[in-house]
Amino acid sequence: MEKIVASIITIGDELLIGQVIDTNSAWMAQELNKIGVWVCHRLAVGDVWDDIWKALDEESKHSRIILITGGLGPTADDITKPLLNEYFQGRMVVDEGALANVKQIFERLQRPMIERNLKQAEVPDVCTVIPNKRGTAPGMWFEKDGKIFVSMPGVPNEMKGMMTDNILPALQQRFGLPIIAHRTLLTAGVGESFLADHISAFETALPPYLKLAYLPNYGMVRLRLTIQGDNPEAMTNELDAQFATMKQLTRDWMVIDEDLTLQEVLGKLLKSRGQTVGTAESCTGGYIAHLITSIPGSSQYFKGSVVSYANEIKENVLGVSPDTLATAGAVSEETVRQMAAGALKVLDTDYAVVTSGIMGPDGGSPEKPVGTAWVAVANRQRISAQKFWFRFDRQRNIELTATNALNLLRKFILSDEG
Amino acid sequence: MEKIVASIITIGDELLIGQVIDTNSAWMAQELNKIGVWVCHRLAVGDVWDDIWKALDEESKHSRIILITGGLGPTADDITKPLLNEYFQGRMVVDEGALANVKQIFERLQRPMIERNLKQAEVPDVCTVIPNKRGTAPGMWFEKDGKIFVSMPGVPNEMKGMMTDNILPALQQRFGLPIIAHRTLLTAGVGESFLADHISAFETALPPYLKLAYLPNYGMVRLRLTIQGDNPEAMTNELDAQFATMKQLTRDWMVIDEDLTLQEVLGKLLKSRGQTVGTAESCTGGYIAHLITSIPGSSQYFKGSVVSYANEIKENVLGVSPDTLATAGAVSEETVRQMAAGALKVLDTDYAVVTSGIMGPDGGSPEKPVGTAWVAVANRQRISAQKFWFRFDRQRNIELTATNALNLLRKFILSDEG
Repeated sequence: MEKIVASIITIGDELLIGQVIDTNSAWMAQELNKIGVWVCHRLAVGDVWDDIWKALDEESKHSRIILITGGLGPTADDITKPLLNEYFQGRMVVDEGALANVKQIFERLQRPMIERNLKQAEVPDVCTVIPNKRGTAPGMWFEKDGKIFVSMPGVPNEMKGMMTDNILPALQQRFGLPIIAHRTLLTAGVGESFLADHISAFETALPPYLKLAYLPNYGMVRLRLTIQGDNPEAMTNELDAQFATMKQLTRDWMVIDEDLTLQEVLGKLLKSRGQTVGTAESCTGGYIAHLITSIPGSSQYFKGSVVSYANEIKENVLGVSPDTLATAGAVSEETVRQMAAGALKVLDTDYAVVTSGIMGPDGGSPEKPVGTAWVAVANRQRISAQKFWFRFDRQRNIELTATNALNLLRKFILSDEG
Repeated sequence: MEKIVASIITIGDELLIGQVIDTNSAWMAQELNKIGVWVCHRLAVGDVWDDIWKALDEESKHSRIILITGGLGPTADDITKPLLNEYFQGRMVVDEGALANVKQIFERLQRPMIERNLKQAEVPDVCTVIPNKRGTAPGMWFEKDGKIFVSMPGVPNEMKGMMTDNILPALQQRFGLPIIAHRTLLTAGVGESFLADHISAFETALPPYLKLAYLPNYGMVRLRLTIQGDNPEAMTNELDAQFATMKQLTRDWMVIDEDLTLQEVLGKLLKSRGQTVGTAESCTGGYIAHLITSIPGSSQYFKGSVVSYANEIKENVLGVSPDTLATAGAVSEETVRQMAAGALKVLDTDYAVVTSGIMGPDGGSPEKPVGTAWVAVANRQRISAQKFWFRFDRQRNIELTATNALNLLRKFILSDEG
């Protein structure tokens, strides 16, 4: 079966000067992958005529599908549309559908519409217009020498809408795409090297159409097994069997045998038990609460938090004893234990997860260096506390503290008969 | 003056299947930009021998400097090092410095060291080794036909350490780099198109060596003016003059005339006034507290938060009246006003910022559709509340609510004689 290969070209000076992190490419690659399209290149170029032109030439040499984002905005540096018009030898015309869309959006926003905005409804007459339900710039689908070129706005949710509603279904229909299936498991508490060594015999014995990927992220490693073929039933059977072996081999560190985040795993667990959680956060400053509430429907099991950055909040809201803060300090086992007890009471939840630490860059001491974090998890019967020492920058120390706290909570709940 | 052009090549299947968002490239581009190196291409390729090889060939055609990250890990899919060894016709040798580093790291972590890890100390004998203070894989600097190739690990903080300590200073020393200067201002509450139209005469009149960039992000637009030249004094004078004009033109929407985030602006403001803030968050679930506490030193002005996801926390901790919740509802002006009063009392701060809304995808109604958010800011004397309606996905609605809340708070503080 022919392998369908795609390139992603992202256009915009902002990508080359580092002002914007490109999250579009990752999402697009993921979605293409799901329908069996392999992304071989992701290229970012500036708002420079020759560079964009050359990129179109180059990428169409090795890819059947070239997806382009960015450079469709209304400002002077956005040159993608006139360039595509010339590249595909078209003529600019007003698209009535796109025009109606622009007008409707400005009406709804009750903002004044200017000449620049109306220009957004113009497209080359050699393209098929892709409607933009979430913004003013229409998408454009071109074909040339058997290659497909699709231009989309760089605004993530506009691009996503077009991909989901139009482009992915159209690509799937056009190509008889191979079937791809993934199974993913999440591990915590083990390094990538150690894990790779532990399962190396398994990995080496995999047939060529099965691929194992290690995806490390903040103290956790995701293992993904991918199979490609054309017989869904045989593929599923083989994938299931190999995945079962892999689960068995990694059982000591496995968090879940699905492609879920820790906060999703936790949400499922709490929902299934009909239990609730709250957080009392010092060093993580609300980040754990944010992670939990980033999951839709989290209000079913998350009640709230006390972010106790200042010691007086630890005392006045959570009831930590001033003596403890004075003698053991805010970053201590005694303090997180008292914070946990206080959180259960104030938030009236089944579980509480609590943090106190020094995330840096300042505030460290020889006894409590930057990166020191105390974490506690508790229910009405018991409290469990653990000390960590992370050696990274502030942002990463916060993320690692949050991740480890969520994992401790997960294990604590599982060990709980409830 | 010669323009020094660089390419960034990121290696790893995980980048092409979208499991990992590439934050490295943006950071690298930013740092290169600061020393006057222009990134013309950012390319992501998979762990595929031929693709990496071709990328090295291609990029060295148009760039003097090729920075490479990723593919240096200890697992089987990491092929960058043997490939570079062959590409530059070297021979693998153990680097004593790198070996000592690997051993020291494993000793410190008290983890068992395996054969795979020792391999990390091997490097091609044709490269200059760049020490890795934060991990086991050393960096490698190669030169060929007047081009510089530098290979670094993909782990962000390891790459950043090498860039800052070694690579950037070495590049600066090597090339007589042109001088580049930026001035950035942040606006809020105005769209990119409208802003572009408003200052189009200014933009058109700019000389060719001055460039204006629009950097929109979550309801805010950053405007950056860049000058390039070789006479620092003349450049500074001209940049200052043009920037002053731009500030004047955008005064109605300008948040700050520096390249700062809203939470940094707020931190500076509160610190200079010796005042404190706390948050009471329903729909943002701790995200505002997280943004504030992501700034080092925020403990000087941030005391804490009450994340009141459940109505009973709004009642019991913040003192919102059950009647108000029953009649006006949790997402209402009355509720956020009472939450603000409660937050000031419980957290004992000078200011409070408060949110309550429906972030989606579920929970909307005809009267209060998904994306509705009430925000309040308060001090002891007065409370100001505003309603928003965002039309995006959950994540973006949360971010937009937080951003707008922080901006309301900033304006509220500025209007306050304190």
